[in-house]
Amino acid sequence: MTDPAPLVDPAAPGFSEILVEAVRGGILESVHRGAIAICTPEGEVVEAWGDPSRVIFPRSSCKMLQALPLVESGAAAAAGLGPEQLALACASHNGAPIHTARVSAWLAGLGLGEPDLRCGPQEPHDLADHDALVRAGVCCDQTHNNCSGKHAGFLTLNRHLGGGAEYVEVDHPVQRAAREAMGEMTGDPDLGYGIDGCSAPNFATTLKGFATSMARMARPQGLGRVRAAAAASLVEAMMAHPELVAGEGRACTEMMRAMPGRAAIKTGAEGVFGAILPELGLGVALKIDDGGTRASECAMAAILVRLGVAEAADPAIARRLNPPQVNRRGLTVGEIRPAAALA
Amino acid sequence: MTDPAPLVDPAAPGFSEILVEAVRGGILESVHRGAIAICTPEGEVVEAWGDPSRVIFPRSSCKMLQALPLVESGAAAAAGLGPEQLALACASHNGAPIHTARVSAWLAGLGLGEPDLRCGPQEPHDLADHDALVRAGVCCDQTHNNCSGKHAGFLTLNRHLGGGAEYVEVDHPVQRAAREAMGEMTGDPDLGYGIDGCSAPNFATTLKGFATSMARMARPQGLGRVRAAAAASLVEAMMAHPELVAGEGRACTEMMRAMPGRAAIKTGAEGVFGAILPELGLGVALKIDDGGTRASECAMAAILVRLGVAEAADPAIARRLNPPQVNRRGLTVGEIRPAAALA
Repeated sequence: MTDPAPLVDPAAPGFSEILVEAVRGGILESVHRGAIAICTPEGEVVEAWGDPSRVIFPRSSCKMLQALPLVESGAAAAAGLGPEQLALACASHNGAPIHTARVSAWLAGLGLGEPDLRCGPQEPHDLADHDALVRAGVCCDQTHNNCSGKHAGFLTLNRHLGGGAEYVEVDHPVQRAAREAMGEMTGDPDLGYGIDGCSAPNFATTLKGFATSMARMARPQGLGRVRAAAAASLVEAMMAHPELVAGEGRACTEMMRAMPGRAAIKTGAEGVFGAILPELGLGVALKIDDGGTRASECAMAAILVRLGVAEAADPAIARRLNPPQVNRRGLTVGEIRPAAALA
Repeated sequence: MTDPAPLVDPAAPGFSEILVEAVRGGILESVHRGAIAICTPEGEVVEAWGDPSRVIFPRSSCKMLQALPLVESGAAAAAGLGPEQLALACASHNGAPIHTARVSAWLAGLGLGEPDLRCGPQEPHDLADHDALVRAGVCCDQTHNNCSGKHAGFLTLNRHLGGGAEYVEVDHPVQRAAREAMGEMTGDPDLGYGIDGCSAPNFATTLKGFATSMARMARPQGLGRVRAAAAASLVEAMMAHPELVAGEGRACTEMMRAMPGRAAIKTGAEGVFGAILPELGLGVALKIDDGGTRASECAMAAILVRLGVAEAADPAIARRLNPPQVNRRGLTVGEIRPAAALA
């Protein structure tokens, strides 16, 4: 492997702050550091914790940006996609039947099938769904992959563009379109890419660039007619179908239901989280240094409460803001909570 | 919940260092901070990263200390326990059949059964073992709990002490004995406790106190005849049965097999790891700030190589030192590696 890019120096002063604490028996057991940027569509940093210039991989939290070419190319309309498919294109779903059935039907509508996906197989998120497969004597397949909706979107765009079958290659027209949209929305120069868990390229951005892109999704009027309409339809689809963006019990789904019409939020691997806030016209980007999801969810809940978009007392928010740590006999043995910087 | 104890101040200078890096596409994606202490049996800090005075919960990495009263009381001998049972008493096992069958037989030998455990049920670690339960139409029970061997040890000691059934209560004679052994071995004052995932109290220690206790297990001659013999028999049992201390594929098992007779190592939740090094007469204690196991395993591998106890080229060590990050199509997309401080 090559050395880290010079733009990421975690030892630099101000790189990150302590954002989340884990407490047990009244003693601080673990802490999570990270950085957060809240930006306007013009790229102004309204508030930040840690260094908003740091480079991150947005991972799955940028799926709505990767889906822009699908809509603005006309591919989505040509294929007759509705809000359910657009929500799935932005999803990291549980691989539950409500997700896999829709992805399979979508592929069939394109005259394609599971073997055309390039995301790889993944076990369903929930053990109950896994157990149903075991009882049926079948294995998980690529439709269960949390990214299968994004990939169905890639295949839909590919049909429109007439590209080859290997649509996850970085120089493929589908990925060139995603890269162009990412660059325009973040305003960042080309910062390189990594390969994601689903084999698609994931393009690096600055934290503030990613927050700016989220703000532009929130208030897309300045993006030009075609992109503005595409952005609005994706954000509306995410907010209309939170159950398709993640699944029952998941942070994105439950928290979006608790903020109807006020936020489209999306988690990503390695402790990334993005939020699109249409009423405020702001975007939020968040990265936990160590990649911990328990911390990214807690910090995002704290930011949403701080901005007045969510209520701390709402059970769906409280469950992320102060998740009780319950042990194997159901005893509460500690808690996760925002650190002083976010409290 | 009460506030954190003042002894843990993660914002203090020198609290921790960047120990482990996660790289993707040539870009540093995530980092893990933490602290390490290498100590002698006399409590001298030979080398440290971060603050060796910080307070930690040793979690499951201190099971061999919790098991000392079982052996030195004579309870283990009276019950006819051998090295397999002693290894299980120190284990966080996979809940595989080799573990559950031995725990069940051990309990039966005491005239007890699964309902006498107080650890709570837990799914087996490996999906294949879980699937076997699903196919058999049965649920996991308390014998599958990774701590069931520790609890069988508690029940064996309890039989000897004549205590009540609720042996995980902090004032129960079994836990008072564990607390006393922990205090004597670490040399720390009483720093409080938390309730562990298995419902037993977990007594807080300093990082250097825990490393000192590991050194005393490694070179127990100064502990007095009874404790020295107990310590030696537990360490020998762990090294003789690495497959019982964790399970196939796990770091403790594979790494101990790669260092036969040279190290007894034990992981714990929230990024803790302890190492007993008999040949060197040293102990190692390690805590990752954010609780990440991928980082505690990588950092422990780096320390074992640095101390000459393990070979970096051994596959079992290399798998923790530089674990390739492989995605769902089997592509290598990045790596975890020790940071400069440990390289």
